[in-house]
Amino acid sequence: MSWEDNVRKVVPYVPGEQPKVADKIKLNTNENPYPPSPKVGNVLKNFDANSLRLYPDPEAFKLTEAIASYYGVDNNKVFVGVGSDDVLAMCFLTFFASSKPILFPDITYSFYDVWAKVFNIPYKTIPLDDDFKISCDDYMQDNGGVIFPNPNAPTGRDMSLSDIEKIVKNNSNQVVIVDEAYVDFGAQSALGLTDKYDNLLVVQTFSKSRSMAGARIGFAIGSKKLISYLNDVKYSFNSYTLSPLSIELGKAAIEDDEYFKKTCSKLIATRENSVDRLKELGFSCIDSKSNFIFAKHKTCSARYIFESLKKKNIFVRYFDKPRIDNYLRITVGTDEQMDIFIKTLKTIVETEK
Amino acid sequence: MSWEDNVRKVVPYVPGEQPKVADKIKLNTNENPYPPSPKVGNVLKNFDANSLRLYPDPEAFKLTEAIASYYGVDNNKVFVGVGSDDVLAMCFLTFFASSKPILFPDITYSFYDVWAKVFNIPYKTIPLDDDFKISCDDYMQDNGGVIFPNPNAPTGRDMSLSDIEKIVKNNSNQVVIVDEAYVDFGAQSALGLTDKYDNLLVVQTFSKSRSMAGARIGFAIGSKKLISYLNDVKYSFNSYTLSPLSIELGKAAIEDDEYFKKTCSKLIATRENSVDRLKELGFSCIDSKSNFIFAKHKTCSARYIFESLKKKNIFVRYFDKPRIDNYLRITVGTDEQMDIFIKTLKTIVETEK
Repeated sequence: MSWEDNVRKVVPYVPGEQPKVADKIKLNTNENPYPPSPKVGNVLKNFDANSLRLYPDPEAFKLTEAIASYYGVDNNKVFVGVGSDDVLAMCFLTFFASSKPILFPDITYSFYDVWAKVFNIPYKTIPLDDDFKISCDDYMQDNGGVIFPNPNAPTGRDMSLSDIEKIVKNNSNQVVIVDEAYVDFGAQSALGLTDKYDNLLVVQTFSKSRSMAGARIGFAIGSKKLISYLNDVKYSFNSYTLSPLSIELGKAAIEDDEYFKKTCSKLIATRENSVDRLKELGFSCIDSKSNFIFAKHKTCSARYIFESLKKKNIFVRYFDKPRIDNYLRITVGTDEQMDIFIKTLKTIVETEK
Repeated sequence: MSWEDNVRKVVPYVPGEQPKVADKIKLNTNENPYPPSPKVGNVLKNFDANSLRLYPDPEAFKLTEAIASYYGVDNNKVFVGVGSDDVLAMCFLTFFASSKPILFPDITYSFYDVWAKVFNIPYKTIPLDDDFKISCDDYMQDNGGVIFPNPNAPTGRDMSLSDIEKIVKNNSNQVVIVDEAYVDFGAQSALGLTDKYDNLLVVQTFSKSRSMAGARIGFAIGSKKLISYLNDVKYSFNSYTLSPLSIELGKAAIEDDEYFKKTCSKLIATRENSVDRLKELGFSCIDSKSNFIFAKHKTCSARYIFESLKKKNIFVRYFDKPRIDNYLRITVGTDEQMDIFIKTLKTIVETEK
């Protein structure tokens, strides 16, 4: 007998590498290549450090209000947390307290099974079809809850709103969570459906489209009832999760809609251009509505390309997992970064021939 | 059948009031009346907002290293989180996975039973003695883990290091957590014992003695093994909890030891002076080693005083709970704030006579 017998033992999620070399091109963790809105910098410059002696507003009211106003919903339909990982972890803890398995795709965000395991939630993964599509009919079986990203990760493929609505409608006795981390890069958001379905929760983040991975802000929008349950669990965990700085920085970011739309458009244009160039090099790419491209080469192995790029200080993501171990997930950078990346890639695949 | 059947329902912790009136004296949530070190302000002024596009270092290396170096321990003995509430919640989830009840005092930090409930951890509360002391002999019974604050909250009373060591030594098959949120105001830290006992975890925070409640930084120090288990669970929950801003601000704060010691001494002097003045007004005060005073009046009810102070925009904390419902918890403010507070109090208790 030892104290270690009482320890919850988990196999932790391994985040993408944060290489410390200079002069690198970092296309491995889906960060936005553009800085946040200049208004974020202004808030930072004018923030009174002395006010840090005080606890933040536990309701993060200024930020929830700004998000609610941007999306045209009531304040009590919005929940905020320390990145969408915090929001999603709270959702797993709050909404998936069933003895029936929750459902999510076999190829998806790698944190879902980690959260299920840490909270002892039974789960069942549903294989994507051969084109890496989520088939909505698979989610009509008996379950304890449903979660999927739209667009999905790491494939980047999106789902139609009508398919999403089918899943939500046919699972009215379970909570359905749509994880929209990448939705602003071209997919359709399910936010509009939250008025109609009180079992639908939509989760988004400031980390990708709003260029603020470092500010740690995620949020959920859903029925007043869902948000209230989520807040109860959050207050039972940690009342003061968001610092006053993150609250103010987030507010400034969401209020600068012009900048947001401009950078999203630039990124989408770079993505489409990069996909064309990748195809010319012999890659096939899943149709992406996200800020990354999921691609495989016709002859060259993904692992070989991944390692070769790394030697040249270009970092992309490689998953050594069934069905996707010949794909690379490439975050869309600036035009300049993608140009260097694709030229390097050209040398690698041509040398290997 | 409804989706609400699968929801984890909890009675959330109610944080102290954050009154929005101006011209108030806020002595209700144990914030430090002094601002953080001026070096924290410098970091904020010079922080590059553009770098917020990137995810933070999941290991928060710069901060864990600064804490480790300050306390003279190895980096791998330090864990950091979003305030000590986040650290403690992770500890409950990680270390208290036993079917036997964990033990903590009946009068203590109000979050312990909330965490136990949210994670379905059985628990048993041990009554403080009539002088509101923790009796170490009570913690020798069969259990699944032990946690207590030193000094205790909301009493402010501390425990001797030899009593703490007895508890740790006699519970070698369980994890013992000493919650030292207030230790820098005059109690003895158990940090030195972490070398000797691999089942001892000490948790501290930047929110009180380092005047940074708004930066959301807490940390734990313990054996390499304990920290490694804690990190596994944290990485399974949310890899990126601390923003790069909090990491840099925290580092600056802990490196300014002169400022830290100066403000702690000032606060302790104000506390001792305030206790003397409270006694003159007919209060009895528990001997406090924290930045608050737990006091009751010989004739005037705590609830009456609490309400009367509130009308004059002076906020203290009142707990409507068995055994302590005639006490007030008064955060120690500046000399000027305490002077106004005590003069107002004098009028209240004298008018009531």
